[in-house]
Amino acid sequence: MPVNLTAPDPEALAPIAGVELGWAEAGIRKPGRKDLLLMRLAAGASVAGLFTRNRFCAAPVLVCREHLRAGQGVRALVVNTGCANAGTGAAGLADARATCAEVARLMGCAPAQVLPFSTGVIMEPLPMARLLAGLPMAAQRLAPGHWAQAAEAIMTTDTVPKAVSRTAVLDGRTVSVTGIAKGAGMIRPDMATMLAFIATDAAVAPALWQQLAPQIADASFNRITVDGDTSTNDSLLLIATGGSGMAPTASPADARLPALREALLAVAQHLAQSIVRDGEGATKFITVAVEGAATEAEAARVAHAIAHSPLVKTAFFASDPNLGRILAAVGNAGIDDLDVGRLQLYLNDVWVARDGGRHPDYREEDGQRAMRGAEIMVRVRLGRGEASTTVWTCDLSHEYVRINADYRS
Amino acid sequence: MPVNLTAPDPEALAPIAGVELGWAEAGIRKPGRKDLLLMRLAAGASVAGLFTRNRFCAAPVLVCREHLRAGQGVRALVVNTGCANAGTGAAGLADARATCAEVARLMGCAPAQVLPFSTGVIMEPLPMARLLAGLPMAAQRLAPGHWAQAAEAIMTTDTVPKAVSRTAVLDGRTVSVTGIAKGAGMIRPDMATMLAFIATDAAVAPALWQQLAPQIADASFNRITVDGDTSTNDSLLLIATGGSGMAPTASPADARLPALREALLAVAQHLAQSIVRDGEGATKFITVAVEGAATEAEAARVAHAIAHSPLVKTAFFASDPNLGRILAAVGNAGIDDLDVGRLQLYLNDVWVARDGGRHPDYREEDGQRAMRGAEIMVRVRLGRGEASTTVWTCDLSHEYVRINADYRS
Repeated sequence: MPVNLTAPDPEALAPIAGVELGWAEAGIRKPGRKDLLLMRLAAGASVAGLFTRNRFCAAPVLVCREHLRAGQGVRALVVNTGCANAGTGAAGLADARATCAEVARLMGCAPAQVLPFSTGVIMEPLPMARLLAGLPMAAQRLAPGHWAQAAEAIMTTDTVPKAVSRTAVLDGRTVSVTGIAKGAGMIRPDMATMLAFIATDAAVAPALWQQLAPQIADASFNRITVDGDTSTNDSLLLIATGGSGMAPTASPADARLPALREALLAVAQHLAQSIVRDGEGATKFITVAVEGAATEAEAARVAHAIAHSPLVKTAFFASDPNLGRILAAVGNAGIDDLDVGRLQLYLNDVWVARDGGRHPDYREEDGQRAMRGAEIMVRVRLGRGEASTTVWTCDLSHEYVRINADYRS
Repeated sequence: MPVNLTAPDPEALAPIAGVELGWAEAGIRKPGRKDLLLMRLAAGASVAGLFTRNRFCAAPVLVCREHLRAGQGVRALVVNTGCANAGTGAAGLADARATCAEVARLMGCAPAQVLPFSTGVIMEPLPMARLLAGLPMAAQRLAPGHWAQAAEAIMTTDTVPKAVSRTAVLDGRTVSVTGIAKGAGMIRPDMATMLAFIATDAAVAPALWQQLAPQIADASFNRITVDGDTSTNDSLLLIATGGSGMAPTASPADARLPALREALLAVAQHLAQSIVRDGEGATKFITVAVEGAATEAEAARVAHAIAHSPLVKTAFFASDPNLGRILAAVGNAGIDDLDVGRLQLYLNDVWVARDGGRHPDYREEDGQRAMRGAEIMVRVRLGRGEASTTVWTCDLSHEYVRINADYRS
């Protein structure tokens, strides 16, 4: 059961002028489920891609990078679930290229204008016959109003489709941002995106768009962790079609930019948090805030040490205020000159540890009450400086093991 | 159920001249179990201590370091389970010192000649009244033949006591090495020892003993991981009493040293591997060998990335040859210039991935067969150089979550 997350209302998802979506049930891994997504982009869209830092990145990631570098513009995206096309060597690369070629033929564009994405099991060959056979149906369904179906078509172990829209008013003109994402496991901060596609009808010059994309990722998808594993296929694609008809923005100083950035970030954070809320086996949504760090990087190290600790995560699952585990995780963050005597720990509004030891007024029942909630805030103050960060994670339950032990069956 | 690990035969544990052991059921956390251990050392023993690198180290670790630095020699060790005396601030330090003072009074030595050790729940105060009340009984039981009871007295979530002896013949004279250890969770390579005490009646000069200790730790306790969490209390103590009457060795070039080192390492590796075999919820014992690395540090990074991955560990639990997860873990090890096209992966005798992709002859049933065993060898060849390392770990099961969710109940 996801934590306070329900399927999006399709009516609440704004179409983006310049983006059409179509899907197929191609039977890539299992029959009778949406598993193939095609997105067609109008000519001239600004497209920025951020990809996994896993060195064993999948064939489609290599092809995406190559096609983006080619600079011919992007006219189509093709996404399959059920098979990651990773650890598949030269044959996998050929499959990803052949997929692009067929999409290009159907769309009437160049293969280098197509970006491929895959997600699913690693080290198995892409079932090309079924994938290629599904493409014409996906092409036939292309329409701007299909974001909800697109969110379904990219799900793997997700239990809930993830999609959201926001609007921003830029100098009197309303623009929309709509995004979809998938992912529930194998997720950690180095490009924790699994797959996410966010599009806006705002008009942003390519160079500025490339600058904006990592800022959005750093404050959203790079701040979540479910199990500390970085996928071979993680990809975030940001698309600005310009379909709203607004005058393009090309300068970081443009007064319209803050409102657009805010809407993009709201969509990205909502999707990122949705991935955690739907984390494999998750029963709690945990916000880890680290304050008083010397640098932001140090704050992030501490936050991730807490968010990655299996002992902390199982304690949250059990609603057991075994909070010394959080102190131990902080001690493991690799800050050599950490003075634990300055450390404060809070759980929601409960002051648990003062100056590195149990707070004299801390009562176990207060910790217990905080742990029982489905939404928990862990706050650590290091007393070293002014830097801070926030990371979102979930607990570690029996169900995580069950899902990952049975994933392929 | 531990993996191929049974309680040691008490008859097979060699007494070490110069070491006496006594225990009590002090009721520190639960009544009716051995939870307090006293060890008395003859005067003149060489003692080396290696401690956790967790910055949030426990009060007894601080006191151990202080007393070893004082250089007055070590005459007694006191170990309690049930409470880690970590995250307890100044009060915890005072408790650790008071424990040493009482042991010193009973043993007729100086407090700075006593080393304290604690293991158990973090951030709870040591129940001093019960601990101090248990000490006279432990002192009364002091005898050289009590290694088996000592191994029991330091258990927490361990399901099997861990103890072993080896002998070595040094220039015609037989010396013994006997060790005990405890630990089953919160274990990772930076001093993954939890608590381990290894004693020999060989005579080794203090300076040489201090050199030897980290070599032994690096090839044993620092090569295991259960869940990637480093404890606040991890301690390894190596004791050379000289009780065998052999002429002391003081030089690294001493011809007797290799045989002694081999016996020490055999005991240390046996205890370290026993901790993994008894890893919380473990059903498989997994050896991860990384070869062909550019440096040993690089080999260790890759081995630990595999051994720490929850996705790899759940796949082993399920006997599911979802072996792409191992490739993904290698890709996450942070080797920026890794050429995945040179990577080979073997499971036992099965060649799974060749040159970064699935081996054309690899059959899933072969992988499945290898995964079903209780002892599994994962071998990765990186094709970058001549360095290699080996790490031992276990799988991640439902039971791990159950144990850690219920630990305090």
